[in-house]
Amino acid sequence: MDEKIVPNIVVGRLPLYLRTLQLMNQEGRRVTSSQELGERLGISAAQIRKDLSQFGEFGKQGTGYNIEYLTGQLRQILHVNKVWDVAVVGIGDVGHALARYQGFSNRGFRIVLLFDNDPQKIGKKVGEFITQNISDLVRMIHEAGVQVAMLSVPVDHAQQVTNLLVEAGVKSILNYAPINISVPPNVHVQYIDPVLHLQRMTYFLD
Amino acid sequence: MDEKIVPNIVVGRLPLYLRTLQLMNQEGRRVTSSQELGERLGISAAQIRKDLSQFGEFGKQGTGYNIEYLTGQLRQILHVNKVWDVAVVGIGDVGHALARYQGFSNRGFRIVLLFDNDPQKIGKKVGEFITQNISDLVRMIHEAGVQVAMLSVPVDHAQQVTNLLVEAGVKSILNYAPINISVPPNVHVQYIDPVLHLQRMTYFLD
Repeated sequence: MDEKIVPNIVVGRLPLYLRTLQLMNQEGRRVTSSQELGERLGISAAQIRKDLSQFGEFGKQGTGYNIEYLTGQLRQILHVNKVWDVAVVGIGDVGHALARYQGFSNRGFRIVLLFDNDPQKIGKKVGEFITQNISDLVRMIHEAGVQVAMLSVPVDHAQQVTNLLVEAGVKSILNYAPINISVPPNVHVQYIDPVLHLQRMTYFLD
Repeated sequence: MDEKIVPNIVVGRLPLYLRTLQLMNQEGRRVTSSQELGERLGISAAQIRKDLSQFGEFGKQGTGYNIEYLTGQLRQILHVNKVWDVAVVGIGDVGHALARYQGFSNRGFRIVLLFDNDPQKIGKKVGEFITQNISDLVRMIHEAGVQVAMLSVPVDHAQQVTNLLVEAGVKSILNYAPINISVPPNVHVQYIDPVLHLQRMTYFLD
């Protein structure tokens, strides 16, 4: 499929569509519509049709979308028809929760490496994995060819560890430290900070 | 301040500006510019000026923004010039991490109540708090007047617990369960699902 430039905001909605379709599939459903997807997601049906039309023709007027087919197409578009190996750096409470999180399976990701700099944690098992010494990070990530990392180190260390991840060849970083990090243009960063979401909502409260 | 209708996407950027200003303040800085904010955030200076202009005049051409003043104004706009009490429901790995998360302080939120339905967890201390029985949730949240909740229960229980939170008077829910939840129109929901962010990035990887 040709990859034309699709607006970032559209790309950001595709994982929501995929998640909803996968849940429908688990419910034993076979067919859905832009109306139903829209109702589940609070997005207009017209928006959903417009978003999907950027990537091809996935449904027929009147018969809706085949859930399994559209799921497969979205997995291909988002490149999660394969499984990406993921490294977690910083095994505090958040890193610990990520290492044991059940929500990655069948969605394109599996954690394969954990790192920390705390001698109390290095060599200890978390979930199925042994926490490695951060001093081995660049070598181990490079050797394993890992391109995706989740960063859950303290704010003070976030940029320094980011530099190591970039050096190791990581191309996508999900940053849990509540600070913006700098990366070269070929590296993508997303942020998870619960306070940003909470403040978006208190705007509407008195 | 009159609250006209501001697009959701603009509201969503204000917490980013506030976080960056608070970090600058911690660095001992006094003045910044839309250019500098933009560079730190990867947002254009023009966009930042346009976003802020929806709420008033916060800087002078040529002299930039006073960090402390703009911080105060944004806290007021986002209603985090006060501290919101927060309940956490579901004390698994994620709930545990939230209960001990240091990133809420001075940003408008403090956790005051934890709930779970597991007899092994009820009555046990996590961080500074004792986990309460979910059967007391509606009464306790209502009595405490808590309007903000973080939901970290398994997918199967997310909607059912959401209904309890709404019944108790909660108006803002940050949902960590990877499923969309239904709420009345006067209740706001935000979602944290690391896979949505990871898939947004693998779109750009091969």
